[in-house]
Amino acid sequence: MRLTRYFLPTLKETPREAQIVSHRLMLQGGMIKQQQAGIYSWLPLGWRVLKNIERIVHEEQERAGHIPLLMPTLQPAELWRESGRYDAYGPEMLRITDRQNREMLYGPTNEEMITDIFRSHVSSYRDLPLTLYHIQWKFRDEMRPRFGVMRGREFLMKDGYNFDLDKEAALHAYNRHMVSYLRTYERMGLTAIPMRADSGPIGGEDTHEFLVLAETGESEVFYDDRVTGLKLGAREVDYDDRAEIAAICEEFTTLYARTDETHDAAVYEAEVPEAHRRVGRGIEVGQIFYFGTKYSEPMGAVVQGPDGRQVPVHMGSHGIGVSRLLGAIIEASHDDKGIVWPEGVTPFHAGVVNLRAGDGDCDAACAAIEAGLAARGLEALVDDRDARAGEKFGTMDLIGLPWRVTVGPRGLKDGKVELTSRRTGEAEEMSVEAVIDRIATIYGR
Amino acid sequence: MRLTRYFLPTLKETPREAQIVSHRLMLQGGMIKQQQAGIYSWLPLGWRVLKNIERIVHEEQERAGHIPLLMPTLQPAELWRESGRYDAYGPEMLRITDRQNREMLYGPTNEEMITDIFRSHVSSYRDLPLTLYHIQWKFRDEMRPRFGVMRGREFLMKDGYNFDLDKEAALHAYNRHMVSYLRTYERMGLTAIPMRADSGPIGGEDTHEFLVLAETGESEVFYDDRVTGLKLGAREVDYDDRAEIAAICEEFTTLYARTDETHDAAVYEAEVPEAHRRVGRGIEVGQIFYFGTKYSEPMGAVVQGPDGRQVPVHMGSHGIGVSRLLGAIIEASHDDKGIVWPEGVTPFHAGVVNLRAGDGDCDAACAAIEAGLAARGLEALVDDRDARAGEKFGTMDLIGLPWRVTVGPRGLKDGKVELTSRRTGEAEEMSVEAVIDRIATIYGR
Repeated sequence: MRLTRYFLPTLKETPREAQIVSHRLMLQGGMIKQQQAGIYSWLPLGWRVLKNIERIVHEEQERAGHIPLLMPTLQPAELWRESGRYDAYGPEMLRITDRQNREMLYGPTNEEMITDIFRSHVSSYRDLPLTLYHIQWKFRDEMRPRFGVMRGREFLMKDGYNFDLDKEAALHAYNRHMVSYLRTYERMGLTAIPMRADSGPIGGEDTHEFLVLAETGESEVFYDDRVTGLKLGAREVDYDDRAEIAAICEEFTTLYARTDETHDAAVYEAEVPEAHRRVGRGIEVGQIFYFGTKYSEPMGAVVQGPDGRQVPVHMGSHGIGVSRLLGAIIEASHDDKGIVWPEGVTPFHAGVVNLRAGDGDCDAACAAIEAGLAARGLEALVDDRDARAGEKFGTMDLIGLPWRVTVGPRGLKDGKVELTSRRTGEAEEMSVEAVIDRIATIYGR
Repeated sequence: MRLTRYFLPTLKETPREAQIVSHRLMLQGGMIKQQQAGIYSWLPLGWRVLKNIERIVHEEQERAGHIPLLMPTLQPAELWRESGRYDAYGPEMLRITDRQNREMLYGPTNEEMITDIFRSHVSSYRDLPLTLYHIQWKFRDEMRPRFGVMRGREFLMKDGYNFDLDKEAALHAYNRHMVSYLRTYERMGLTAIPMRADSGPIGGEDTHEFLVLAETGESEVFYDDRVTGLKLGAREVDYDDRAEIAAICEEFTTLYARTDETHDAAVYEAEVPEAHRRVGRGIEVGQIFYFGTKYSEPMGAVVQGPDGRQVPVHMGSHGIGVSRLLGAIIEASHDDKGIVWPEGVTPFHAGVVNLRAGDGDCDAACAAIEAGLAARGLEALVDDRDARAGEKFGTMDLIGLPWRVTVGPRGLKDGKVELTSRRTGEAEEMSVEAVIDRIATIYGR
C-alpha cells in the first residue's frame, strides 16, 4: 500500500483528552477517532490491527474445537427477565424501545441468548460437549468512559459458552479455554497471567482473569514473579485430552497470582519467597467462568442424560476483550517514539521509506520490495510522500511497524537498502532480494 | 469438520413463518434462528456463508483501491441534525437515549459520520481521491420485517463513500464502484443487473440499483433480455483508467433495464425489440449513488483546491446488502431438495457422507479426504453420524454443498468413492486421491 493512496491521518499535537499512553498513541497514529464518549471509529490502521487480533482469536478458538456463530447486537428484554438479570443489571445496560414499544437492549454479554439457542435445538446428551462462541460488538453504558478503547462503551468482544453434561466435563471446557487463551495472548506478543478472580454479575464458583502487567492497569495485582517466565510456546496440545489440559492449567496457576479482589496476604506471604514477591498493576484482557446450572436451570436448558432423565446442562462463559487488546498491547509495547507492534498483530508487516519519491530507481526498488513481499503473503506500507526523511522516519516510529526498509539513492548505487528493527534500532544493509527474504523468514513465510 | 462435533440444527418440519423459499431453507438448514422480529442469530453454517460473502466484498473493494475502516453501530444525533436528516428520517430510525440523556441512534447508514471523519482529517485536494468503506451492522426499524434476512431489522451492509475534487472525478468513483460490484456479484454466482433507480432518502442525481432476477423479488423490473448475458468474466481491469471503466459501465447499462420506479413504457417500446422485452421481478442487492455536495456543503467537508480556494468535495455512497445476499443467492439457486450453493460462497467446499460410520476403512477414507482437502486449503463437512444413508443424503441436499463425496464399504473394496454434483446430480466413481485432486481443481487450488 502506498501512503499517498492510503488514509493515515496522524496528528502532530498531543491530544489533550488522552490520559494513558495507548490512548494517546492510537489518536496520534491515526488509528481511532472518537465519535462520542466511549464510542470510536476504527480508522484504517486501527482496523487492520483489530482484524488481526480477531483472526488470531478465531484461529485459536477453532483449534480448541469451539464453534463460531454470530448473535445479534440487540436482544429482547424477555430473555433477560427469564434469567432474572434484566432488573439486576443496572444502568450500564443500554435499554431501547422500538417503534412497536417492544423492550430491547444492546447486549453487554450473551449468556441468556446462547442458552436460548441451545434449548431450542439440543435435547440429548449425545450432542454434548458443545462450545459455541462469537465475536460481536457489545455495549456497556459506562458512567465515565475513558482510556480510549480500554474502557469504551461500544466494544468488540469474543464470548464463548460451553454446554456439558456434568461438572467434570464443564471443568475440562474451562481448562480448554484457559489453555487456548494462553496461546492466543502469546501469539499477540503478550504475557497474560491467569489470576483467580471474583465472578461479579456473571456469577459462578470458578473464575480466572487474564492480566497483562502494565503501570496503567486498573487492577492491583500480587504475584510470584516466576509466573511471568511461564510460556506455552510451540508445544503441541491435544485439546481433547483432559489430563494434559489440566496439567497445563496447573502449571500456569500454581504460583501465586491474584488481583486485589481475591488477594490473601497470609497465603501470599506463606507461599511466595520474599525475593519473588511482586505487587504491580494489571490490565484485564480476558476472563473465564464456570457457573454450573445458573442459567440452564431457570431457562430450562436441559438434555436427556444416558439414563433417560432430564438434567440441566453445566455451563461456563469465556471472554476476550478484542478491541481492548489493542490498548493493552500498546501499553505493554511502546517507547518514547511510539508504538512497537509485535509481529503477530502488526497492521503492515514492514514499512518502506522512499527517501526520494519520484526518483526512478528509488520508486522501482520500493515497488519491487512491495511486490516481492506480496508474493510471500506479506503487506508493506510504502511512504512515497514528498516529505523530508525525518518526517517519514517519525511516522514509521509512531505507527510502530516492527521492520522498516529505507530506500535511498546513495545506497541503491551499491545495490543496497537498509533494514531496521523498530524494537532495537539495529540496522543492516542488504540487497532488495535479501531484504525480501529476510522479512519473509522473520514472519515464517 | 465432523458433523458429530459440529452444531447444525436442521429442522424436519417446514417452518410456518417462512413465506419465501430462502427463509424456509435457511431455517430448515440450521443457518439462522430468529431472536425477535427481524433480528437473527447466525448459526454456524449461516455464519460461514456470511463470512465468505464479506470476504469477497472486501477483496473486490480493496482491488478497486477502496480503503476499509470501521465506524461504530451507534451514532450521535447531533451529526444527523447537521445534515438535516435527523427529523426527516422517520420511524425507521431506532432512536436511543443513554444514561446521561444523550440522544443517539443505531446507524441505518453512514453518510454523516464518514463526512465527519473526512472533514476532521482532510483539508487538501492532494489527499484526494479517497474512497473509504466499512462492513458493519445497521438497523432499520421496519414496520413489518419479513422474508427472513431479506428484510430484517438488524442487517449487515457494506457501505462506501467517495470524496473527490470535482464531479468528473466523482463520476469515475461511481463507475469504479459499478464495475467492482459487477465482479463481486459474479464471484458469488449471481447475475445482478444494474438498473437506473430512484435515489430515495440518500438523495442525488445518479443512482443505479443492482437486481438479481427472482420471482420473489420486491421490485417489478423491465429489461431487454440480452442484458442477462453480459459478463465481466476474468478480464483484467485497471481501476485507475477512467475511459476503460466508463466503457465497461456503458456496456452494462446501455440495454434497457429499469425498476418500476424509473420505468418509461415509451422508451422501453422504442428501444427494446419485442422479442427481447421481459417483465419480471428482482431482488435489490446493492445500490450506488452520486450526490455531489449534498452532505459536504451543510457539514463543511471542504478542501483547498489547486487554486487555493476552499471547495466542498463531491461525494457518493455505495452499498451492498451483505446479509441480504444470503437470501438472494438462495432465491436464485435452489431446487426442491434444498439450497445449491455457488462454489464462491459455499459454507464447506465439499460434503463427505460416511455410509458406515464406525467402520475402520470408511472412517479412515473420510479422514484422508478431509485431510487431503485441508492440505489444499479446502474444508469438508464429514457426516459421521450413526444414521441411515437417506437421512445423510437429505441433509447434504438441504444444506446445498456443491460437491458430495460418498464413502461406503462396497466402493472401498474396489478402492473407490463417489463424487456427486449437487447441481446436476451427476455422479462418478474414483479413488480417494483422485477425488481430492478433482475437488481441488474445481476450486482452483
